[in-house]
Amino acid sequence: MKTLTSLIFTAGIVLSAFSVMAADTQEATANSQKPVYGDYQNWRLLGVSHRQDKKTLRAILGNDIAITAARKAGTHVLPDGAILAKIAWKESFHPSWQAAIVPGEFEKAEAMIKDSKKYATTGGWGFAYWKGKELLPFSEAKAKECFACHTAVKDHDYVFTNSALQ
Amino acid sequence: MKTLTSLIFTAGIVLSAFSVMAADTQEATANSQKPVYGDYQNWRLLGVSHRQDKKTLRAILGNDIAITAARKAGTHVLPDGAILAKIAWKESFHPSWQAAIVPGEFEKAEAMIKDSKKYATTGGWGFAYWKGKELLPFSEAKAKECFACHTAVKDHDYVFTNSALQ
Repeated sequence: MKTLTSLIFTAGIVLSAFSVMAADTQEATANSQKPVYGDYQNWRLLGVSHRQDKKTLRAILGNDIAITAARKAGTHVLPDGAILAKIAWKESFHPSWQAAIVPGEFEKAEAMIKDSKKYATTGGWGFAYWKGKELLPFSEAKAKECFACHTAVKDHDYVFTNSALQ
Repeated sequence: MKTLTSLIFTAGIVLSAFSVMAADTQEATANSQKPVYGDYQNWRLLGVSHRQDKKTLRAILGNDIAITAARKAGTHVLPDGAILAKIAWKESFHPSWQAAIVPGEFEKAEAMIKDSKKYATTGGWGFAYWKGKELLPFSEAKAKECFACHTAVKDHDYVFTNSALQ
């Protein structure tokens, strides 16, 4: 049973990887790519954060293009096709270990999508959010708001998160 | 180039998945399995935490067996072969966003390995730590110390972390 589960998972990974290869830098909201974006739960870890001002815990995951690039020493700018997923949960205290702040209620999952041509006016990054498995672009006004905030890390390709793993 | 990188990554995932299938519940420190355990950086996310008492940020990742089981609704006990990786970094303030606590210096990567027979006296869990790519078992005294602490969550299969994603 475990072997079967592993086989199914392996097949899923292979299919996902090929889907990412095919999708690459194309339109984020195109129907054919929804399943790829919906897979952020299975992406690898870029980093974590505790936003004390927002009272949220976050995990930042990335698709294969993003993580492969980000874990290379000296990477400064992520390539086209990179997608980052920022998942935020309301902070909560672990019932059996009060000094540990852990994810409480799910708050949101947002994305940054690198396409240096399409999103040239916002540093090469498109800003979007997941509604269930569907990735939807933010309104132009909201995207500008995202970008304004990310301008604080312009020298780090507008990405706040460093790769926590090599 | 991206396609080549993706192909290499895909091949790596497939090899890793088959290695996990082969390794399964065997001895943690057997030479043949070191590469499997060394791959924790590529495992999927179980959860995150901010241990205010230890001043560390943590990511808890799991191998395929662990995550596949943990993300099923109603899962209470992880199966044999499940391995969890707890990665801890010293807390640090983001230089461009002081209200965000982010991973600073890497502190440690530790493991819980489920083998209900081998580790019957410690709730079915073996306790270990990574030294680089190598996973080494804790001394008996240290393992008992780990277990004593995890007894606080005996009703949750001795695992503090809930799956933050489905």
